Amino acid sequence: MSYKKIIEEVYERVKNQEDTGRLATYIPELANVKAASFGVHVSTIKKEDFGFGDHLEKFSIQSISKVLTLSLAYTILGEDIWKRVDVEPSGTPFNSLLQLEADNGIPRNPFINAGAIVVADILMSNLKNPKEDFLQFVRSISNNSSINYNEKVAASEKSVGFRNIALCNFIKSFGNIHNNAEEVLDFYFNVCSLEMNCKELSDLFLFLANGGKNIQTGKQIVTKRQAKRLNAIMQTCGFYDEAGEFSFRVGLPGKSGVGGGIIAVHPDEFAIAVWSPRLNKKGNSYKGFSFLEEFTTVSKSSIF
Amino acid sequence: MSYKKIIEEVYERVKNQEDTGRLATYIPELANVKAASFGVHVSTIKKEDFGFGDHLEKFSIQSISKVLTLSLAYTILGEDIWKRVDVEPSGTPFNSLLQLEADNGIPRNPFINAGAIVVADILMSNLKNPKEDFLQFVRSISNNSSINYNEKVAASEKSVGFRNIALCNFIKSFGNIHNNAEEVLDFYFNVCSLEMNCKELSDLFLFLANGGKNIQTGKQIVTKRQAKRLNAIMQTCGFYDEAGEFSFRVGLPGKSGVGGGIIAVHPDEFAIAVWSPRLNKKGNSYKGFSFLEEFTTVSKSSIF
Amino acid sequence: MSYKKIIEEVYERVKNQEDTGRLATYIPELANVKAASFGVHVSTIKKEDFGFGDHLEKFSIQSISKVLTLSLAYTILGEDIWKRVDVEPSGTPFNSLLQLEADNGIPRNPFINAGAIVVADILMSNLKNPKEDFLQFVRSISNNSSINYNEKVAASEKSVGFRNIALCNFIKSFGNIHNNAEEVLDFYFNVCSLEMNCKELSDLFLFLANGGKNIQTGKQIVTKRQAKRLNAIMQTCGFYDEAGEFSFRVGLPGKSGVGGGIIAVHPDEFAIAVWSPRLNKKGNSYKGFSFLEEFTTVSKSSIF
Amino acid sequence: MSYKKIIEEVYERVKNQEDTGRLATYIPELANVKAASFGVHVSTIKKEDFGFGDHLEKFSIQSISKVLTLSLAYTILGEDIWKRVDVEPSGTPFNSLLQLEADNGIPRNPFINAGAIVVADILMSNLKNPKEDFLQFVRSISNNSSINYNEKVAASEKSVGFRNIALCNFIKSFGNIHNNAEEVLDFYFNVCSLEMNCKELSDLFLFLANGGKNIQTGKQIVTKRQAKRLNAIMQTCGFYDEAGEFSFRVGLPGKSGVGGGIIAVHPDEFAIAVWSPRLNKKGNSYKGFSFLEEFTTVSKSSIF
Repeated sequence: MSYKKIIEEVYERVKNQEDTGRLATYIPELANVKAASFGVHVSTIKKEDFGFGDHLEKFSIQSISKVLTLSLAYTILGEDIWKRVDVEPSGTPFNSLLQLEADNGIPRNPFINAGAIVVADILMSNLKNPKEDFLQFVRSISNNSSINYNEKVAASEKSVGFRNIALCNFIKSFGNIHNNAEEVLDFYFNVCSLEMNCKELSDLFLFLANGGKNIQTGKQIVTKRQAKRLNAIMQTCGFYDEAGEFSFRVGLPGKSGVGGGIIAVHPDEFAIAVWSPRLNKKGNSYKGFSFLEEFTTVSKSSIF
Repeated sequence: MSYKKIIEEVYERVKNQEDTGRLATYIPELANVKAASFGVHVSTIKKEDFGFGDHLEKFSIQSISKVLTLSLAYTILGEDIWKRVDVEPSGTPFNSLLQLEADNGIPRNPFINAGAIVVADILMSNLKNPKEDFLQFVRSISNNSSINYNEKVAASEKSVGFRNIALCNFIKSFGNIHNNAEEVLDFYFNVCSLEMNCKELSDLFLFLANGGKNIQTGKQIVTKRQAKRLNAIMQTCGFYDEAGEFSFRVGLPGKSGVGGGIIAVHPDEFAIAVWSPRLNKKGNSYKGFSFLEEFTTVSKSSIF
Repeated sequence: MSYKKIIEEVYERVKNQEDTGRLATYIPELANVKAASFGVHVSTIKKEDFGFGDHLEKFSIQSISKVLTLSLAYTILGEDIWKRVDVEPSGTPFNSLLQLEADNGIPRNPFINAGAIVVADILMSNLKNPKEDFLQFVRSISNNSSINYNEKVAASEKSVGFRNIALCNFIKSFGNIHNNAEEVLDFYFNVCSLEMNCKELSDLFLFLANGGKNIQTGKQIVTKRQAKRLNAIMQTCGFYDEAGEFSFRVGLPGKSGVGGGIIAVHPDEFAIAVWSPRLNKKGNSYKGFSFLEEFTTVSKSSIF
Repeated sequence: MSYKKIIEEVYERVKNQEDTGRLATYIPELANVKAASFGVHVSTIKKEDFGFGDHLEKFSIQSISKVLTLSLAYTILGEDIWKRVDVEPSGTPFNSLLQLEADNGIPRNPFINAGAIVVADILMSNLKNPKEDFLQFVRSISNNSSINYNEKVAASEKSVGFRNIALCNFIKSFGNIHNNAEEVLDFYFNVCSLEMNCKELSDLFLFLANGGKNIQTGKQIVTKRQAKRLNAIMQTCGFYDEAGEFSFRVGLPGKSGVGGGIIAVHPDEFAIAVWSPRLNKKGNSYKGFSFLEEFTTVSKSSIF
């Protein structure tokens, strides 16, 4: 059975399941989204491309952007980046503060907030116009110049971002933030507010299924080795305190965001984006997770 | 280039590298091993099979046995097993006690000591003669009736196993150990003392590269889905506080033991066993880790 | 107004208050006590002595015994004892495991279980017949040869003491328990089972109000400096995670036990024992705490 | 022997001891102080008053100010203040973050930074001109209108106060900071920068030895009960992770600051201020601690 057929069938099945998840409400602006939205889109390295449901509606990719800032910072610093942030899975946010103390301000991995803030700080030090340059990087990977920040979401997150201010200053007290904390966070909140639809998102991440190379332009975004390593980090650290569960049930490297999006990558095959804004208790899209579990089961596309 | 050729070359290169690791000394009996030992063996699902160096010398597989007890318990309880133990990566041992408290005695995963002790308790409740029955299970997977416990090592570990006694009783205080703590630990220490050489070890684990099926007898040891899930847990939790690093640098599901062994599995391709008893600071074989990193790099056999 | 008058009045007032506490149930044998019991007894250094309510009924002093084992061990090791256990207040039991790890097996203070187990280990190493010799010490301080262990309570506690087994073995893994863990705990559980009535308890602790000297025999039990220091530790560490609250509301050095007893000492004035078995959420006697707060308020006998 | 005589003798003895402490360097401006300074001053409720050494030289009282902000906030909110901050001793700063999480943003006590920041927030909400009004309060207790902030020290602390920014925003994320975080911290840093000499400091704290009453004006600053409770909190929480040790070795309620000052209070007798800027490993004045230990030993003035 083709991926398209399988996806269509699984999409219909999961669409009709009861959704016990809840909208993220901590960022006021995010609470305005249509809760029942559900879309999925696949892009394959054979340049196939198809989607179902609300796959052309834009949403806030939130933490999924952490893979993109890391990718850009990785191309700039190379392996030196791991002096500033580690690659180990972390427990809960609660532990991450504890671990920052134990690890002298070196975050456990780049996909918890602490780590992504350090990565944002690295970009601040290395980009002339961080917001513009990063946006340019994202657009160039995706061959899509319409991708943009949502300033309202960024402002909304900033207005309640006390815990991120705490994290950033805590890390700065260890010397692992080099720029002004307020400016780092301003950049960080903007990056989180990036908006895309499922099609744009799966197109964008296809380079990680394709050995780091843009499938349209042939341009090497990150090296092949870097692509593998980015996938490995997604596998072990992509879903907060549910990384093991995702690995166990879905079996693909991936990354979620509190906007309800999930991106997953099957090396040498495809990138798949799902969006459904109601979140399970661990903060990952309830239907997105269900869909991916069933999809990899039926299609036998777990990497394990 | 064939796996054999690559392995031979990488083996020679790593053999001559300086080894900054140190022998595990906390189990007195383990300190008697020849520190410079270094062996590697591959078994493929095409029934190829070759090794280099000390690949026919027996060693104590220690925590690698945790995958085997889990496999057997998984076949007995099915998915119910996850009510007793979770599948999330854990931080350091230091955190694992903290997390047991926070998680009411449910260990984070079956590959930390706390989790493996719960798995041992499950087997105690379900096997008539736990030690004999488990040994029988291992022998049957490996088609090798010479595999055995090393009673001296078991006794040695027991004589200094205060922290494991602490863990077991701590979990029992939450009600998640059902049998007598002393008997559970006696079984646990025996299991850890299993002795094999690299060839036996890679032969043994080949079922996890082969969809759960014994390649000689065709017998389904665990279901295909269970095999995938066991691999997923090895990927996220197989190397203590270095699981992310192993995933990142090697890119294969695997499991290490303080005896200096590492097993890694490439689904649908091969199982590879390495043994070199000097350990890095995180408790994983120094040369074993180096070898596997270089091997997957040269052979392009990372799953990512 | 005399102490006697005040105590009588406060006793009556508190007796009639609603008691929102609950019996300790974790030691099966302790759950058999009459829940409504309430007694109080004062012994002054002027050799006055009076009690009200159930002050002549025996109860299990439990953790109050920790002051007595510490006193004896202090006389044996002198200030060297602080190499084995610290004198800092601890947070919850939950933290105490964490802190044992951070502090390499040195308990925060002698009044948390971890610390009292280390003190028991010290006595094991220094007494010929630990149980008999310690009982002899207690009897000699109290001029009362009828004081005894309750073997049933000791056995009951032992049968469910998994967390104490965990603690003892955890500390042993750091080298701070020198004797066999099982024997140390056997002694520890016996000590906790000591039975007394309020009169015996206040008589017993009078030496700490009297500069360390037995008021009947004139014998110096601990030095004056040691007495002051024992009082200081009771002040900062005597009430688990409620030490600050007790200090704040009552203002006397003291120690509680889950049997519902509390002893408090006013240096140079008196020792007062209260017993009421229903415990508040932090594990301290609900009415005992209320009584002492009101008593020190009315009698203006806070040391602050 | 009179207090004066004892203090003079102990002062001379401690003055000549080797000082293994080190200047606090984390606030750049504090590093400029003369390291060998050593002064002591006593004020008794009999209106005696004498000092030795550098007792008339001003220094930054730093955390000692936490007792003063708490006193003022206590008079405003009464016992309601304990809804915002607890009275339990805390472990290390490391734990305090952990505990904030566990306790939903309620700091363990008002003398750790987290707690003092909440107290500052309370004053911000209740004072018209926080800086001026608080200064007025301090001057009125001490009958001394020359006491002032040191703006340079405040600015210096602010320039490196990342961890306090982290704490304040972390607490704000739980809803327990009501004002703008930056403004709360601006006030907090000013309060910490209060400058006094030992005479001014012991005069100032005499109200806590005198049942809450200003000894010159007879004005009741805090109620008698509040004075007792403030002393009790100093006893259990006044010395960071060395509160137990201070209680144990000195036996008086007190509070230290990283400027090298210590105030201690003997209820109904005296207040004593010591200043010597070299700090021990726990952040308390090395010679200040030694002096007080020897002083209470020789003068038998421990409250225990």
